[in-house]
Amino acid sequence: MSVAIVGAGPGSPGLITVRALELVREAEILVYDRLVSLELVAEASGAARISRDGLTQEEVNELLVHHGLRGRRVVRLKGGDPFIFGRGGEEVAALAAAGVPYEVVPGVSTLTAVPALAGIPLTSRGVAAQLTVITGTNADGTDLDYDRLAGTPGTLVIFMGHLRLAHIADRLILAGRRADEPAAVISKLSLPDAVACTGTLATIAPLARALPQPAIVVIGDVVAQALPVLTALAATEAA
Amino acid sequence: MSVAIVGAGPGSPGLITVRALELVREAEILVYDRLVSLELVAEASGAARISRDGLTQEEVNELLVHHGLRGRRVVRLKGGDPFIFGRGGEEVAALAAAGVPYEVVPGVSTLTAVPALAGIPLTSRGVAAQLTVITGTNADGTDLDYDRLAGTPGTLVIFMGHLRLAHIADRLILAGRRADEPAAVISKLSLPDAVACTGTLATIAPLARALPQPAIVVIGDVVAQALPVLTALAATEAA
Repeated sequence: MSVAIVGAGPGSPGLITVRALELVREAEILVYDRLVSLELVAEASGAARISRDGLTQEEVNELLVHHGLRGRRVVRLKGGDPFIFGRGGEEVAALAAAGVPYEVVPGVSTLTAVPALAGIPLTSRGVAAQLTVITGTNADGTDLDYDRLAGTPGTLVIFMGHLRLAHIADRLILAGRRADEPAAVISKLSLPDAVACTGTLATIAPLARALPQPAIVVIGDVVAQALPVLTALAATEAA
Repeated sequence: MSVAIVGAGPGSPGLITVRALELVREAEILVYDRLVSLELVAEASGAARISRDGLTQEEVNELLVHHGLRGRRVVRLKGGDPFIFGRGGEEVAALAAAGVPYEVVPGVSTLTAVPALAGIPLTSRGVAAQLTVITGTNADGTDLDYDRLAGTPGTLVIFMGHLRLAHIADRLILAGRRADEPAAVISKLSLPDAVACTGTLATIAPLARALPQPAIVVIGDVVAQALPVLTALAATEAA
């Protein structure tokens, strides 16, 4: 394969896959996201290393196609998983359109890491049989369908929503979701400086505002079932 | 840590994480699922290797606690991710109750691997902004809430549902979901003998019946956007 679209995992360098690390070490060109750990970037010691920061998506696509067409071993290293609310699909489409051979290596998504590292099961027998995943804003800029989300059973996970959480929580409560429903925001999951706060839908937003990016929001009774699995996670309990 | 609850990834040995492989290699006791690849089991060359097959969940919990209390390096290796519709939570709860120190290492979930390996984006700009994940039956044995699921926008992913798919698809259509909505079943994702079939909600069930376990069902317009990313996946198109 000339170009590999590779998930780096949620942050901790040990959570990259064996196959992904092999590709990074053999890369001639590495294009990496800001959220990828510097330890992983350093593994591509023989590669030209290009930060994705400051490039448009169109420029990233062009870079991958340009070097791919020349047969260089290109690795596009993305935070988390390339496709779970990432934009790996656009990069793959650009490569396919240009006739560049490519490989995709899935990564540990932040979504997957929530239960393992923050101790919150996303589904749980008798508590939540359904998991719903959304982003904090729709791609077309319209607001979320709060009426429907208020009536959706089970656990709600929101990517890229913690800075808008005051608005989202207010609207969910207005639409009928319980104000005392447990909620959590987890920031920098899997990293040594990971931090989380837990509260209720009514109390979580002011707590969340202080947390750094990237962060993921979990709303549902499963939050109250959290087990203390993350030693590195300094949890702050809401009063 | 005495006991590690570790995700093995969706099947291909290269899709285990670096940290997980390190723990497997250092293990004294390895308790592994039937779906874990034999190549990964063989990596625990210094360990007593115990198949989980034929043990009840209660017996697995007891085994982990028993060896954990003696300070042995125990690895519980689970297919996919331990917590995404796995039962890692029950094992963690048993260890916590017994005061055994433990570590959890997330894995690449089959859910995450669908877009990367089967080419189906689970969300997509203008096509699906929401992802809903359920299992084919509720834990309490009751049937799914088809009325609600029929009205849920975006992509629907069903774990452990492909053998009941005729029933599930019929009920979703009766409840108002489009009969011509694209649907796919993907079996043994990431393995060399992976196989998928695509069709519509009305046509998918007879195709799916022939596919082996484990399999995952994806329903939604994103299925029609599938890109050819999986060379090892022999896709069968419905007529």
